[in-house]
Amino acid sequence: MPTESTPTPRRGRPGHDQESVVRGAIDVFNRRGYDGTSMEDLAKELGVTKSAIYHHVPGKSHLLETALNEALDGLTNVIDEARSADSSVSAYERLRTAVTQSIEVLAAHLPAVTLLLRVRGNSEVELEALRRRRDIDAALASLVQDAVDEGALRADIDPDLISRLLFGTVNSLVEWYRPDGTQDAKAVANAVVMLAFDGLAAPPQ
Amino acid sequence: MPTESTPTPRRGRPGHDQESVVRGAIDVFNRRGYDGTSMEDLAKELGVTKSAIYHHVPGKSHLLETALNEALDGLTNVIDEARSADSSVSAYERLRTAVTQSIEVLAAHLPAVTLLLRVRGNSEVELEALRRRRDIDAALASLVQDAVDEGALRADIDPDLISRLLFGTVNSLVEWYRPDGTQDAKAVANAVVMLAFDGLAAPPQ
Repeated sequence: MPTESTPTPRRGRPGHDQESVVRGAIDVFNRRGYDGTSMEDLAKELGVTKSAIYHHVPGKSHLLETALNEALDGLTNVIDEARSADSSVSAYERLRTAVTQSIEVLAAHLPAVTLLLRVRGNSEVELEALRRRRDIDAALASLVQDAVDEGALRADIDPDLISRLLFGTVNSLVEWYRPDGTQDAKAVANAVVMLAFDGLAAPPQ
Repeated sequence: MPTESTPTPRRGRPGHDQESVVRGAIDVFNRRGYDGTSMEDLAKELGVTKSAIYHHVPGKSHLLETALNEALDGLTNVIDEARSADSSVSAYERLRTAVTQSIEVLAAHLPAVTLLLRVRGNSEVELEALRRRRDIDAALASLVQDAVDEGALRADIDPDLISRLLFGTVNSLVEWYRPDGTQDAKAVANAVVMLAFDGLAAPPQ
């Protein structure tokens, strides 16, 4: 069952257009590590010449930047939507929606989000991505705080810790979720929201 | 505040004894990636000669194996304890204890567990570690199933999915938890157990 809400762009032969070079590079970076992959390695993996890659992109760090921005733009949209919600929508509802949409972004852009979550800050491109990630995390933490202030979330656990655990759970999906698997993204998102908000203990009879 | 339940072994100068070589290697592997670190790199990072390292360990894969077994042995003990619990202890209680103890192992052996969670199966040592991890995950999933069968956990979500999300949350701690931080391991473990079982929604008034 298809799980992506955005259509997958049609792919040419790897290395034949910029889009296919980016997709191929993300896969190779996730498999071998960005630092451990040279343009030479990348060309071999994609079965093209290095100059074929340079025809489409200026260099390796540009490929990384494109991939990280794909993931970051998706997650930034989630935040923007939560922020621009009508004031009649409670922080609790906005947070539930943000969790659901974060999972949909993760599922639709799984390779790019996986790469983003492994970034450690080894270059200017990575440091900039970490800055953007911190802004997103801060916005999510502030949404949690608003929901606590509203009285909708338990107040006996530090809101920052709640936020870390909640989005830690979301991010942990990259470790096992596969869009071609038996679980579709909507079902997984529903389960995460149900478990996170209501807990996994059986409701009292 | 110290958070390790086991005392930290006294360390010699890095490279001066086997224990310090292993600790140093785990740190470097986590920072640079195992595949991206040569014995030459490792010697430079530890400020010793390669032969000083070979004096203590037979090679790079032995260092990896030692590190991964440290993490895996800790987690296996958690499973063994859950399995050997008195039959008067409910599966629900055994699961809560297993979650708490998994977090304590993660906190006490943070660098080794971090390395374990990044293993992708690129060598025989990594494949063996993945096999042991799968056994541990299967035992945890079966504990979740027992708690569902017992009626203690909600039955409207696939127990395997519950298990993946629950231990995904636990594993996500390696991304931000630091033993020298403001949160001690017991407090974090309590918060995870409270949130996971009872949810983050405020209890009804």
